[in-house]
Amino acid sequence: MIKAAVLGYGTVGSGVYNVIRENRELINERAGQEIEIKYVLDLRKFPGDPVEKVLTDSFDDIVNDPEVKIVVEVMGGTGAAYEFTKRSLEAGKNVCTSNKELVAEHGLELMSIARENEVNYFFEASCGGGIPIIRAINDCLTADAIDQITGILNGTTNFILTEMTQKDGVSFSKVLKQAQENGFAERDPSADIDAYDPARKIAILSSIIFGSSVDYKDVYTEGIRKISAEDIRYASTLGYAVKLLAEAKKTGDGIRVYVAPFLLAEDHPLYPVNGVMNAVYVHGNMLGDAVFTGAGAGSLPTASAVVADVIDAARHDGKRAYCGWKHDEKLALASNDSIKRRFLVRIYTEDQADANKVFAPDGFLDTVSVGELEDEVAFITGEMTEQEFAAKYKEFGKAISRLRFY
Amino acid sequence: MIKAAVLGYGTVGSGVYNVIRENRELINERAGQEIEIKYVLDLRKFPGDPVEKVLTDSFDDIVNDPEVKIVVEVMGGTGAAYEFTKRSLEAGKNVCTSNKELVAEHGLELMSIARENEVNYFFEASCGGGIPIIRAINDCLTADAIDQITGILNGTTNFILTEMTQKDGVSFSKVLKQAQENGFAERDPSADIDAYDPARKIAILSSIIFGSSVDYKDVYTEGIRKISAEDIRYASTLGYAVKLLAEAKKTGDGIRVYVAPFLLAEDHPLYPVNGVMNAVYVHGNMLGDAVFTGAGAGSLPTASAVVADVIDAARHDGKRAYCGWKHDEKLALASNDSIKRRFLVRIYTEDQADANKVFAPDGFLDTVSVGELEDEVAFITGEMTEQEFAAKYKEFGKAISRLRFY
Repeated sequence: MIKAAVLGYGTVGSGVYNVIRENRELINERAGQEIEIKYVLDLRKFPGDPVEKVLTDSFDDIVNDPEVKIVVEVMGGTGAAYEFTKRSLEAGKNVCTSNKELVAEHGLELMSIARENEVNYFFEASCGGGIPIIRAINDCLTADAIDQITGILNGTTNFILTEMTQKDGVSFSKVLKQAQENGFAERDPSADIDAYDPARKIAILSSIIFGSSVDYKDVYTEGIRKISAEDIRYASTLGYAVKLLAEAKKTGDGIRVYVAPFLLAEDHPLYPVNGVMNAVYVHGNMLGDAVFTGAGAGSLPTASAVVADVIDAARHDGKRAYCGWKHDEKLALASNDSIKRRFLVRIYTEDQADANKVFAPDGFLDTVSVGELEDEVAFITGEMTEQEFAAKYKEFGKAISRLRFY
Repeated sequence: MIKAAVLGYGTVGSGVYNVIRENRELINERAGQEIEIKYVLDLRKFPGDPVEKVLTDSFDDIVNDPEVKIVVEVMGGTGAAYEFTKRSLEAGKNVCTSNKELVAEHGLELMSIARENEVNYFFEASCGGGIPIIRAINDCLTADAIDQITGILNGTTNFILTEMTQKDGVSFSKVLKQAQENGFAERDPSADIDAYDPARKIAILSSIIFGSSVDYKDVYTEGIRKISAEDIRYASTLGYAVKLLAEAKKTGDGIRVYVAPFLLAEDHPLYPVNGVMNAVYVHGNMLGDAVFTGAGAGSLPTASAVVADVIDAARHDGKRAYCGWKHDEKLALASNDSIKRRFLVRIYTEDQADANKVFAPDGFLDTVSVGELEDEVAFITGEMTEQEFAAKYKEFGKAISRLRFY
């Protein structure tokens, strides 16, 4: 028997409690021993809920109890969650978490404390919800040097982009409002639509793949706030989908990590990933291409990933599990300036002559095909570096918008 | 340091040898110890190949060497491979294999011998090539009761069906010939096109999910030999793809396992899986839907999966790893008779009246839309059981073909 404590009885915490109750028998068998939740920490009361009998409002009860070997931190945030995680690891307890803010912000330090205390800090649910992407990297694709990972790592933005594509002409703000009403988007949606959330996730995943800590604050991050119904219509007309991609890639110039909306061609494996689904493309030097798709959020899928961590903690009771994120150092990322791409640029019709001077495109896209955009045209640039494009875009100075081709 | 022997220096065996050489450093780090290939067994000579210095033609050298803890069986077949696997396990050595014939045919016995001798029998590469589906089930999706798995598990047939779809009107035999010329299909293609290969793979996967051995000979197996250009054209016109699916599903009536071509709708996650790619859909009772996609065959992707097994064997040196396939008994499958589906039936135009009598379809599909099929029509049945349909189909007795809707 191994005893665990759950910090926080919110959406994920109650999911964890329920998954362990419902699948008790198979979980115990797979863990190799019985897993008992001895405490659930929450300041609230839950009268009538079966959790009542293990509820505590004191973290000290947990951290001072030598029987507790696994602490499940599903409180969120970087305040108390940080303190409790640190104290748990220092007390020789394994910690399992879904808290991507905490892992992205303090992962380097927490991984190091876990190593020193010979316990495990697991965070499968921090990236890709129920998709077992971290364990796939650490325990499944072990024969490969992984040189690229490209993900749709945020369900809210993928839902918004999918809706905008499927309901041609609907505006970003209208879909966002609808997503908020349905509970698919937060009241303060900034972490999603400004892409801070997928930036944290790709920082975590690249730390595991490349061994040293990638600081999410170093990741070039562009959200989808400016994507308009017209952008989507151009994309569809050209046979592309607009997807918010988070990518980490080893190149001759170094390791690059960025998050931005891209025009993705129909034959790309992430093209068909719609709605709230998440998906992660991985390239291994022996394996080639692999894609993992699944629910990126939700109480039970997230709890399923957290409980898989708990089972792994039980399997590794007293032992360190392998994790690729192994160096106590920060990774210096390469600049994105020299990445070569094509760009879609929308301009007002009257600026065509100037656009020809600056960008010299092969031609302009037929505006008729995209409907009522009568006073504008668009063009696709030749392949050029991000830096070259930025300079030309600034020189031109009057474009409506621009989008990167993947 | 842990020592290994590779049985067979063919496509997969040489891949294993090369993956371990090329990724030596990261593999040793992930295994937690150095992995050395002490022997490669092959009756052939390979003058000038680095393998020469470890080549042996005697299995006794390997099985009698107490230093060898891991045997990699990549010979294929169920003759010598069976004997060598058995003797290796009995000698207390872990065995890693890509040999799906052997696992499907003798898995029950070999798993049992592995258990008795407290060693591991790993076979990640036997299903889905480089897709880490077995480890995903055993080690990643551990919090879930998996109640369904649906896969495109054979690259050759998926390539043929994709080509027939993309080159509208091309015949099965022409594409098969082309696939044979390109090396995507065997000279004797029966294991693929008659679906014995995916039947073996789904039998292995269902044994892991449901715990007891599923005999591939009990799996209803229908291949793609009869799929014609006209079938494909009907499918495309209706917005469906024809896919050879291998499915295992827990239902109220028991566990069902079958392999057959199906008409798959555009919004199904396996619809976009084209060419030689494999993909596996998994449903967990907490996780919901997850899909794993990757290269189903090829020397390096397959070797990548085998080497991941070798690493896991090194990690579990002296310990048993968890495997869901845990009971020494055969699983009795439920009959497919009561599965309810719709069917697409093609008939000659002159038989419409009779078809109306037997099947009473809502109407007939507009033959114009599918081109030159002037003397035939098709209809979609209402939902009925496999048994009801089979009876009606027999009674009608003069259909051109029939296909199941998924």
